[in-house]
Amino acid sequence: MPAPIRVAVLGATGSIGTQTLEAIAALGPDRAVVVALSAHSDEEGLLAAARAWPVAELALSGASARDPRVVHGGAEGLVRLVERCGADVVVNGVAGAAGLLPSLAAIRSGARLALANKETMVMAGSLVMDEARRRGTRVIPVDSEHAAVFALHERFGADSIEELVLTASGGVFRDRPLGSFGSITVAEATRHPNWSMGAKITIDSATMANKGLEVIEAVRLFGIAPERVKVLVHPQSRVHALVRTTDGTLYAQVSEPDMRVPIQNAITWPALEPCAFGRLDLAGARLEFSEPEAARYPLLDLAYEALRSGEGACVAYNAADEVAVEAFRSGTLPYLGIARVVEAVLAGRWPARVATFDEVLAADAAARAAARNAVKGIHV
Amino acid sequence: MPAPIRVAVLGATGSIGTQTLEAIAALGPDRAVVVALSAHSDEEGLLAAARAWPVAELALSGASARDPRVVHGGAEGLVRLVERCGADVVVNGVAGAAGLLPSLAAIRSGARLALANKETMVMAGSLVMDEARRRGTRVIPVDSEHAAVFALHERFGADSIEELVLTASGGVFRDRPLGSFGSITVAEATRHPNWSMGAKITIDSATMANKGLEVIEAVRLFGIAPERVKVLVHPQSRVHALVRTTDGTLYAQVSEPDMRVPIQNAITWPALEPCAFGRLDLAGARLEFSEPEAARYPLLDLAYEALRSGEGACVAYNAADEVAVEAFRSGTLPYLGIARVVEAVLAGRWPARVATFDEVLAADAAARAAARNAVKGIHV
Repeated sequence: MPAPIRVAVLGATGSIGTQTLEAIAALGPDRAVVVALSAHSDEEGLLAAARAWPVAELALSGASARDPRVVHGGAEGLVRLVERCGADVVVNGVAGAAGLLPSLAAIRSGARLALANKETMVMAGSLVMDEARRRGTRVIPVDSEHAAVFALHERFGADSIEELVLTASGGVFRDRPLGSFGSITVAEATRHPNWSMGAKITIDSATMANKGLEVIEAVRLFGIAPERVKVLVHPQSRVHALVRTTDGTLYAQVSEPDMRVPIQNAITWPALEPCAFGRLDLAGARLEFSEPEAARYPLLDLAYEALRSGEGACVAYNAADEVAVEAFRSGTLPYLGIARVVEAVLAGRWPARVATFDEVLAADAAARAAARNAVKGIHV
Repeated sequence: MPAPIRVAVLGATGSIGTQTLEAIAALGPDRAVVVALSAHSDEEGLLAAARAWPVAELALSGASARDPRVVHGGAEGLVRLVERCGADVVVNGVAGAAGLLPSLAAIRSGARLALANKETMVMAGSLVMDEARRRGTRVIPVDSEHAAVFALHERFGADSIEELVLTASGGVFRDRPLGSFGSITVAEATRHPNWSMGAKITIDSATMANKGLEVIEAVRLFGIAPERVKVLVHPQSRVHALVRTTDGTLYAQVSEPDMRVPIQNAITWPALEPCAFGRLDLAGARLEFSEPEAARYPLLDLAYEALRSGEGACVAYNAADEVAVEAFRSGTLPYLGIARVVEAVLAGRWPARVATFDEVLAADAAARAAARNAVKGIHV
């Protein structure tokens, strides 16, 4: 029997982290063990997660720790944790731009990067993929859409693939009359029909900024032209993605929506092992697909616009959306203002390439400033 | 540029043959050329098909020819045609048991066998697959369900596959009240909702004998246990088959129903080339799946029973269904009698293994005799 796979779980108290620990528990200690755990500021949650893994190294990135076993040291602390723990796989479930440096550290350590931090790909996809190629390791997406594409892309090979189709639930406003979008409240925008997720991502699902970010991720992850990445609305969230092969045929990945399936597959990759989660019986299923309406989801078209503009604009798209959603949640921006803020920010000048992390962070900061400015110009 | 693929088309005037010639024409002469054509008795059709391929060798298997270019010689003539023509790929679209020997001849010549003749697999699957392994060549199915499984099975590998799911349109009586099955007429049974096919296969689609035969084929083609082959009713015929990988995830092949896609892929295998046919835009699609009802499709369960019984019973299943459908079409058997005849024949004793073609043909003849006998005992 091979040695168990050594897993580091960054963002262990969040949704991805919790599900990663469930997937690891289901695999059993002969197959996977946790060697490191991190959280942002939830020390109690971190210690609770660590109970099953007494020898795992622990770190808090965003707060000082009371327990002497927990190391504190910001994003740099996460980097040192990754460097030190000797993981075979680093599951990066850190939220936001703070996930960027740990992603790079994972790759540089030679570990496989199981990536749930979308900022890594949206903000620095080219840099990170280049680094993974240089180090001879792999970036394996663990969100359902890219994991589905990854599974098919691996098996068919890049040369056999003509286009990717990402599916979208359509979000909570899929069937809401467009005329009433002006009155959308924060409470309404944070109810997702199929997935239980945080408020930011649920709002991004309603606006399809989430899908726009995924299109950007797909372009970076699979090195494919933006016009070869399509999006279809699929309310049932059973088909996670499809690829169209060069003969025009579509291949779909289909399962119950359960993040623990792609997480397990990223951990055991390239082996496929029996999985306790996500098994779908298709009998009785009805799967529907439709084109996303441009008027309902303006943030989707804006993502393609960002891709056409270049890498800096993709950084700006992500940053502007974050600022705009935050403003919406705090009541200083109407729902329809989110797209207007992102559009205004993208209208600025952004570099076609961001060749270093400093350039990434500079573009991010500039976009946030521009977005805050744009928010001020729009009245609730 | 590589030399064009040399294709022999057996059964060139039938549905598969005609579509094969369309697929070859679409590929263009740089990619594929026809080196041999055969028909059963339609000499005019054969000569018409040959007009585009003046150097192709021609044979009639079931009638004497008037044109001196056309060789006649029964099934043996087809075997000699295959031996002589030097094809890279033999597309076997011959109807019925007559396709068996040409399949074997194709494999023995070292050609790839693009197989649309289901009797080859149902009657002699083990023999034929063993021979293909010995000769180092491949059998590539060109019906839509097995071609879909084949594409996924090749890419994921047998070890990663837990089960196969074949889809079925449900046939023309999918929604007909069971109570009225006693009055089904031949005219009603020969209207297929999604595919335009011959009368025998359309009736087999209504009874699901067709799907039963496909389950047997799948077991032989992929060397998989019968209980790992499932059938789902899928009225839209867009998902041709699915495989469930060992992690429990499903992968589906999806396209417009068009035989020319699997035919082209079998010809160009393992390359995937741009295809003029079958391209599906999923936007607007609704795909539904349900369990087949045992009472509506008794011939499906009987196929699993034949598989559990052994190879001889599978030969008998096919032969009995042919006799029963013929009797139904000629008015000497009611629709519901088809399953009763097959059931009665399967109740006989059949060898677990059929180790030679002579044993196959003996089981076939015995089953036909038993079926004719059973037909006589059932009154219209």
